[in-house]
Amino acid sequence: MSNQAMRQMGRAVIGQLSRRNLLWGLVGGAGTIATLPLLSQRAIASTDPAARLSELGIELPEVPPPVANYVPFVITGNQVFLAGQIAFKDGELLFPGKVGLNVSVEDAQEAARQVAINLIAALNAACEGDLSRVVRCVRLDGFVASADDFTAQPSVMNGASDLMVGVFGDAGRHSRAAIGVNVLPLDASVKIAAVFEIA
Amino acid sequence: MSNQAMRQMGRAVIGQLSRRNLLWGLVGGAGTIATLPLLSQRAIASTDPAARLSELGIELPEVPPPVANYVPFVITGNQVFLAGQIAFKDGELLFPGKVGLNVSVEDAQEAARQVAINLIAALNAACEGDLSRVVRCVRLDGFVASADDFTAQPSVMNGASDLMVGVFGDAGRHSRAAIGVNVLPLDASVKIAAVFEIA
Amino acid sequence: MSNQAMRQMGRAVIGQLSRRNLLWGLVGGAGTIATLPLLSQRAIASTDPAARLSELGIELPEVPPPVANYVPFVITGNQVFLAGQIAFKDGELLFPGKVGLNVSVEDAQEAARQVAINLIAALNAACEGDLSRVVRCVRLDGFVASADDFTAQPSVMNGASDLMVGVFGDAGRHSRAAIGVNVLPLDASVKIAAVFEIA
Repeated sequence: MSNQAMRQMGRAVIGQLSRRNLLWGLVGGAGTIATLPLLSQRAIASTDPAARLSELGIELPEVPPPVANYVPFVITGNQVFLAGQIAFKDGELLFPGKVGLNVSVEDAQEAARQVAINLIAALNAACEGDLSRVVRCVRLDGFVASADDFTAQPSVMNGASDLMVGVFGDAGRHSRAAIGVNVLPLDASVKIAAVFEIA
Repeated sequence: MSNQAMRQMGRAVIGQLSRRNLLWGLVGGAGTIATLPLLSQRAIASTDPAARLSELGIELPEVPPPVANYVPFVITGNQVFLAGQIAFKDGELLFPGKVGLNVSVEDAQEAARQVAINLIAALNAACEGDLSRVVRCVRLDGFVASADDFTAQPSVMNGASDLMVGVFGDAGRHSRAAIGVNVLPLDASVKIAAVFEIA
Repeated sequence: MSNQAMRQMGRAVIGQLSRRNLLWGLVGGAGTIATLPLLSQRAIASTDPAARLSELGIELPEVPPPVANYVPFVITGNQVFLAGQIAFKDGELLFPGKVGLNVSVEDAQEAARQVAINLIAALNAACEGDLSRVVRCVRLDGFVASADDFTAQPSVMNGASDLMVGVFGDAGRHSRAAIGVNVLPLDASVKIAAVFEIA
């Protein structure tokens, strides 16, 4: 069977399982679906990310020029390292402050979604405007400015994670670290750095 | 001399030096042992990690399925990026709280050790159950929930670092960042993300 | 036109533009200079880093041996992962404390510069003393111990970023994350981990 046929079969099988059951089978279950982990972990977006952005009504912002000796992205081999972004939109920082003190979880999720859009804009520049070159969202390192007793950083980060999957499909599923901190640059509530694989 | 013979010689030489002296020689000393840095920095585990886990009495837990749009690991090239883990054991979070406030260093070390076990469980899934494919523990990014005046995060992280070397031998020696933060998800005292190289 | 000729032309064009305008054109402007992003993002140092260090009056310190089961660097493929460093100089930690509380921005910038020097010392060991093998500074993950209301972490991190560009030229331009935290190991004001690409 060709690789392509095997992938199509894999996708069909995946379609019959819920994601939760698939992953449970993947990491904890019997070995009867041994080819699935590779398929699910190395998934390739089935539709065009640019088209998904349009469907979601998202227009990528211009990436602001760095004001210091760092750059929005660096390409090394097949990896793109994206500099940490905050929730700027049209020149304004959305929802500054600390979650659990003066920013709600819902507003911080919205900030995380905007950060994800800004990351994709930098990624788009790295791909010279062709987001179909994105193979995988490898890592999101997410930092949430938090009151000392706020412990739902993962909920906040879902605002970014959900957008990545919305735009890139299975290729948007990533490894993630959600961390609380006492304060972020410019009083941002969310800051996220990322690593992508591109073709 | 063959590569294999050179490696064997290198291991023999390493065996005659203490690790501390070796590394001192490696980075600060004369160039008389010029082949050693490569050997020590690219070391390969000499025994089977699964056997070491057994010897240590460690049974890898099932990796819980993600409850959001992220996954326990992503493979890119020869690298595995592992999502941040906390000290869950049998469904319970070990030693929640902040070190220096309501968690002792010893308990936080134990939490860090459990986090390392959970990371290895995810790594095992990435390797499709064959931990002998692990070439190197490349990076541990460790975050320790800390009272504002607690500054011994490296001691806490040793709980994870020691386990990595216990399981993978020299291949478990890693670059590391130990960082203090005011709060972590679910009030965990330790959260660690990782990068491994696999064959 | 050969690749080399194209690169030379690209460098000449870059020389006629200010960096700010170039990057603006790179990420936000028209496609008329389509070959420039690749050139600027994959830039190669035009002069010898060791010579630049000398010109800057910087002598690389010996890398202290690890006192635990981690190492100052790990090489994986063409990437060097450098362990987090703090601002040790001649055995003394420069400017401990928290920025915005008992450390000034200027002093923290100086600490960040020293951290960058210590990172380059570890990188030099990874390159077996030949810093001309450095292809690119890929990532700086910078953590700044901060008062809860201090939000100028990027200014602090410029102390490290500027040194990287001072030593490696365009190859020193990196993706960066500047994060505030409540406390760092040994009460350091700045801690930075890094990823470099080497040849």
